[in-house]
Amino acid sequence: MNKTQNILIIGAGLCGSLLALRMAQRGFQVTLVEKRPDLRKVTQDAGRSINLALSNRGLRGLRLAGVEDAAKKLCIPMNGRMIHDKVGNTFLSPYSGRKDEYINSISRPGLNMLLLDEAEKMPNVKIIFNHACEEVDLENASATFKDFNSKNETTISADVIFGTDGAGSAVRKSMYESHKFLFSFSQQWLSHGYKELEIPAFPENETNAETGYRTYKNALHIWPRGEDMLIALPNLDGSFTVTLFLPYENSEYCFENLTSPEMVHEYFNKEFPDVVEMIPNLSEEFFTNPIGPLGTVKCSPWNAFGKVLLLGDAAHAIVPFYGQGMNASFEDVAVFDEILEKYSSEKTINWNNLFKEYEALRKKDTDAIADLAVDNFHEMKEHTAMEIFQRKRKLETAFEAEFPEEYYSKYALVTFKESISYSEAMKRGRAQDKAILNLLDDGKITDEMSLKEKLELVKKETEGILHDDEVAFG
Amino acid sequence: MNKTQNILIIGAGLCGSLLALRMAQRGFQVTLVEKRPDLRKVTQDAGRSINLALSNRGLRGLRLAGVEDAAKKLCIPMNGRMIHDKVGNTFLSPYSGRKDEYINSISRPGLNMLLLDEAEKMPNVKIIFNHACEEVDLENASATFKDFNSKNETTISADVIFGTDGAGSAVRKSMYESHKFLFSFSQQWLSHGYKELEIPAFPENETNAETGYRTYKNALHIWPRGEDMLIALPNLDGSFTVTLFLPYENSEYCFENLTSPEMVHEYFNKEFPDVVEMIPNLSEEFFTNPIGPLGTVKCSPWNAFGKVLLLGDAAHAIVPFYGQGMNASFEDVAVFDEILEKYSSEKTINWNNLFKEYEALRKKDTDAIADLAVDNFHEMKEHTAMEIFQRKRKLETAFEAEFPEEYYSKYALVTFKESISYSEAMKRGRAQDKAILNLLDDGKITDEMSLKEKLELVKKETEGILHDDEVAFG
Repeated sequence: MNKTQNILIIGAGLCGSLLALRMAQRGFQVTLVEKRPDLRKVTQDAGRSINLALSNRGLRGLRLAGVEDAAKKLCIPMNGRMIHDKVGNTFLSPYSGRKDEYINSISRPGLNMLLLDEAEKMPNVKIIFNHACEEVDLENASATFKDFNSKNETTISADVIFGTDGAGSAVRKSMYESHKFLFSFSQQWLSHGYKELEIPAFPENETNAETGYRTYKNALHIWPRGEDMLIALPNLDGSFTVTLFLPYENSEYCFENLTSPEMVHEYFNKEFPDVVEMIPNLSEEFFTNPIGPLGTVKCSPWNAFGKVLLLGDAAHAIVPFYGQGMNASFEDVAVFDEILEKYSSEKTINWNNLFKEYEALRKKDTDAIADLAVDNFHEMKEHTAMEIFQRKRKLETAFEAEFPEEYYSKYALVTFKESISYSEAMKRGRAQDKAILNLLDDGKITDEMSLKEKLELVKKETEGILHDDEVAFG
Repeated sequence: MNKTQNILIIGAGLCGSLLALRMAQRGFQVTLVEKRPDLRKVTQDAGRSINLALSNRGLRGLRLAGVEDAAKKLCIPMNGRMIHDKVGNTFLSPYSGRKDEYINSISRPGLNMLLLDEAEKMPNVKIIFNHACEEVDLENASATFKDFNSKNETTISADVIFGTDGAGSAVRKSMYESHKFLFSFSQQWLSHGYKELEIPAFPENETNAETGYRTYKNALHIWPRGEDMLIALPNLDGSFTVTLFLPYENSEYCFENLTSPEMVHEYFNKEFPDVVEMIPNLSEEFFTNPIGPLGTVKCSPWNAFGKVLLLGDAAHAIVPFYGQGMNASFEDVAVFDEILEKYSSEKTINWNNLFKEYEALRKKDTDAIADLAVDNFHEMKEHTAMEIFQRKRKLETAFEAEFPEEYYSKYALVTFKESISYSEAMKRGRAQDKAILNLLDDGKITDEMSLKEKLELVKKETEGILHDDEVAFG
């Protein structure tokens, strides 16, 4: 294999910097170009998802590049969802009945800095900041960039180009606008937008049990309210990043009508009274921070002419409700690397075949997590507060605690069971959910049954559902 | 209501010309602008779906504008699918067990001419040909056009604009490119393309039983071959328009490798031997006619600023496999007209509310027919040749013949039951299909049972499926 090939990676976010590191470890000459300034030198991104949930699939990608342990130092374990009702009562719903299964809150810029630092240590990686991709010549694997400072244009050519430039990808735009092949594309917006707020840490001179945290540290907090929802994830400094998900319009409270501090306080006092005390500058933050849209992007093919490949959000941007956006991107790198390993034994890499094989293997899985994430939006804002879903969760947690080898909930399959693909997790998980909800609804799961009997009944019903779907839909 | 409002309709295809006629009948001042020349004066569109299937939902729209009877004169009834196997055996599968349920083959240009003639008779309709829409100023309801002959630009303003400019809509493009609102959009291409061919009529001096038709006139002919498929629809002049659906690539026979007359004849002789005799100029036509792509377009919102509304293919282009593209567009006009009727009693029409109400009512249905059309692609090319699907069709046809008020197949619900929406037809039709296929697969429908007993079993199973889905997915 000719490892001296030049690889151009466009976008030095989480996916691009991990990919750069990994490709450099494999011996390629890597040029990594980023539109924005070096986030290790310039603070940015106020109000834009400053923490994320890292779980098994993401850790797999980090492990591959030897940075798992370093990343774990940035993590705060979250063992479950802490559900807050309207009068401030809380209820912890564990993510799994298995003790070793939890997700982690991690700082996006913190992790990105770590990956950039590691990539920069490699002698065969060159990182260029402040250069925005304007256009990609897909057939010739060259890209034009505009220098943010000098406004000059530069063209960089390579053997292959990777587009890891996120949900608004300029590389993908070049593919969309090409008329030389049929490009399937979809962008779907939710009717809700999001706004980030902050629960600051207690100042050091105040007395508090939880070392600075104003509410329970090791959980993902949720205030589900049917149409709208608030969530909060802990940061290492004792603060929480809070995200409000609210309809843009056509609702009693929505971004369109929350136009005064009075309205904001009325809304929060009514829906989230326990949060009001924790955010001292509520309305100031509300009116300073931007409203972000929530979109899903899918496209195909991911590659053009065997010269350019999209990875991460550029190929499949998803909504944040399964906490899998970053994890899916890191898993992309791991899946891609596995196929690259296979092709590396050949004298010359056939990138066209490699790219096609990657998409054939991977596309159904990123489609699945995209759909699961939209489903989970509804589950989080509505179902977590509904009695039948709480009964289902309790039953599943009991199965997982008692029969850890025999039962994985949909959430566990998606989040913790990295040996199973997203598409398989979706198929099995949805069938299980349907089985349990119908058994509960029909009163077929009774108090007289042992937990083992309940598990066997759920398994049988699940297999029946999978079989019936197979017969009808193939 | 102020009926002297000016309505600009962009696109004078089937949907636009019916809409223009109907809006003129309601008293609006209508300007209808078309990119192409007047098809009553210039022949065009070789190789582009020259006949279509017209059925109940489409007839509803035509009836509304008083042109149903005139359209019916252009129709050739097709009572079922005539399935051709590899050695030329045929098998007629009726579309319904009810005798009065059939679809019609109709000429696209013929019907378009009829609608243009009728629209032109109205004193308050002005039709402009050869003017291509370049851009729409969405907020001000004005559009810029380029005259094909003079190359001059003209701007036309109106109170509201309707975009009926088809799958590649320029009006929709202006909405996609606007950054003033979130526009959900998807374009999905099948891995297959299509090519039209012609089975000519027998010349008049030849002897033939069927007045010029080389194969049975009153059917939609299908040659299902798993991955590829040929269909044929009759024309009034004795010819059939044949459409080949074939993968672009990665198949033993595909557009990529059918590059010589020898290859084309080899393929047709092997797969469609009975067709070869009927198309004298097979390879000539094959290499002259273009390959068309097969795409589905969905988007939302359909309106911008209460000033511009998309209808027909511009809002929802679908693949042709349910024969519902034109029918869905005509039904759009009927549904829109019904809501307009409600708003017409007010002094000033609130177009913004009207447009939103129309989309809220209609969008789920055009999404449904889009999905059903893709499903039917697979059913037509694969399932029509599979034994279990043939048993299912026979059972359903028997139900419909024996219990015409009690059973409608999915196909009948979609195609003939215009009182039920596409989305409802999809939900019920899919549940029925799943019920029958699983009952057949499990051997639960036995020869000993009476037809009535079989029907009751299917109904019960269907209700169970609908109930279980409702509990699980709401």
